[in-house]
Amino acid sequence: MSRLAILAGQGDLPHRLSVAHPDALFVHFEGLDVETPGNEPFLTSYERFGEMFGGLTAAGVDRVVFAGGLARPTLNPANFDAKMLELAPRFMAAMQGGDDGLLRAVIETFEAHGFAVLGAHELIDELTADAGLLAGAEPNESDRADITKARDILGALGPLDIGQGAVVAGGQPLGIETAQGTDAMLRFVAETRNEMSGGAKGVLVKAPKPGQDLRIDMPAIGPETVKAAANAGLTGITIDAGQVLLIDRSATLSAAKDLGLFILAEDR
Amino acid sequence: MSRLAILAGQGDLPHRLSVAHPDALFVHFEGLDVETPGNEPFLTSYERFGEMFGGLTAAGVDRVVFAGGLARPTLNPANFDAKMLELAPRFMAAMQGGDDGLLRAVIETFEAHGFAVLGAHELIDELTADAGLLAGAEPNESDRADITKARDILGALGPLDIGQGAVVAGGQPLGIETAQGTDAMLRFVAETRNEMSGGAKGVLVKAPKPGQDLRIDMPAIGPETVKAAANAGLTGITIDAGQVLLIDRSATLSAAKDLGLFILAEDR
Repeated sequence: MSRLAILAGQGDLPHRLSVAHPDALFVHFEGLDVETPGNEPFLTSYERFGEMFGGLTAAGVDRVVFAGGLARPTLNPANFDAKMLELAPRFMAAMQGGDDGLLRAVIETFEAHGFAVLGAHELIDELTADAGLLAGAEPNESDRADITKARDILGALGPLDIGQGAVVAGGQPLGIETAQGTDAMLRFVAETRNEMSGGAKGVLVKAPKPGQDLRIDMPAIGPETVKAAANAGLTGITIDAGQVLLIDRSATLSAAKDLGLFILAEDR
Repeated sequence: MSRLAILAGQGDLPHRLSVAHPDALFVHFEGLDVETPGNEPFLTSYERFGEMFGGLTAAGVDRVVFAGGLARPTLNPANFDAKMLELAPRFMAAMQGGDDGLLRAVIETFEAHGFAVLGAHELIDELTADAGLLAGAEPNESDRADITKARDILGALGPLDIGQGAVVAGGQPLGIETAQGTDAMLRFVAETRNEMSGGAKGVLVKAPKPGQDLRIDMPAIGPETVKAAANAGLTGITIDAGQVLLIDRSATLSAAKDLGLFILAEDR
């Protein structure tokens, strides 16, 4: 008997996973405001990993998925159970590596306790895109060259664990994603591009970093990304097939159609 | 007999070169508003390269320096002399590679006509800095790590001919220079950094791209760069010794002292 548990974070992803996998155990962490599904959730806490592992095992769970944004809650060490007291030093050390480091340590802890950790994209196909043109007109030769250059930028920075996004127009780099994220980069491009790139409108490329663990942190685009890209004067968005989350796929694609942007998914 | 010609562009650099090299021929291009020195300039035009080369040779010139920003003037092909008519197709093709491409072609043309082309930094030592702490307090261990990471970013992007500047704070990349330049990047960091980087203030590293021709386009910092870096919350600026122009050295260093930023020049 193999059973899935959905470790619910923010956004509508936990609910969508619950609809797609109605037999899954829905795990609700205290202090997180999540949309609960029809079936009764298992309420537990980051402060009680012992209780959580016990509850999962008792429910027959052997696979878990981290779904949606997991805001870092305020923890009260006075409430830690024995297992959490054992794990806390490791988690605190991992936090030196940022949120990614913490979540990586949490995933390794689940695995060490016998649970397989899946990515949401492995459980719902349509969260990501198959290769092909999803919206808009085929990119032209200049757009293709800009896509290649943006990919070169991401490829060069990947080994430094930097960069899920880049904007290139007419061969000119106009934006390279830093810790502030894609939306901040697109606002920067909108405010500063002026006449930098001749006639070329430019493209946004979003892709995971080489070796990025998609169970932790998946690049994503949504309707807001499309609007921000249009506002930055871009002609389209290219994503990696199967590796970039489409937040609200139909709204994303219809925003692209309305605003005249292409969305292209490419195999890599 | 070896004589220098100063091909004067905008800013105070032509005048400073003329003071340092009073025997140099000062070349003033029609349509450029330049500060002329005491000695009489040789007035010529981008439209008459034949006249210019002839004048330089007649004056005993065998070395030239491109000094200051050379705004691209409006050229009237009806006024081209025979040499410029011969060169124009090459220059027009080079413009496809942007201003750098054009200037590179112009430099190659000078060299092909027997003139050595020097960089301003080769003619006035104090335009750049020797290695050492120029202003402020020694960077601490965290700053040193940020400097190293910013250099790693620039090193990764260099082969793509991208990036003369990067900002890193507490290990987090906050800004990577794109075509819009250093000031735009620093404004972006000021507007977006929020609480991204914990307690670390962060550093700006400015350095030429690997293989960058410093006779064409030299990275530069000045008082405005220091103010923008302070406004972005940074703790200091690191530059390459001998390879980054200090615009108004004393004003740059006193701005750093006033605002509490370090300026560190490093050998590479």
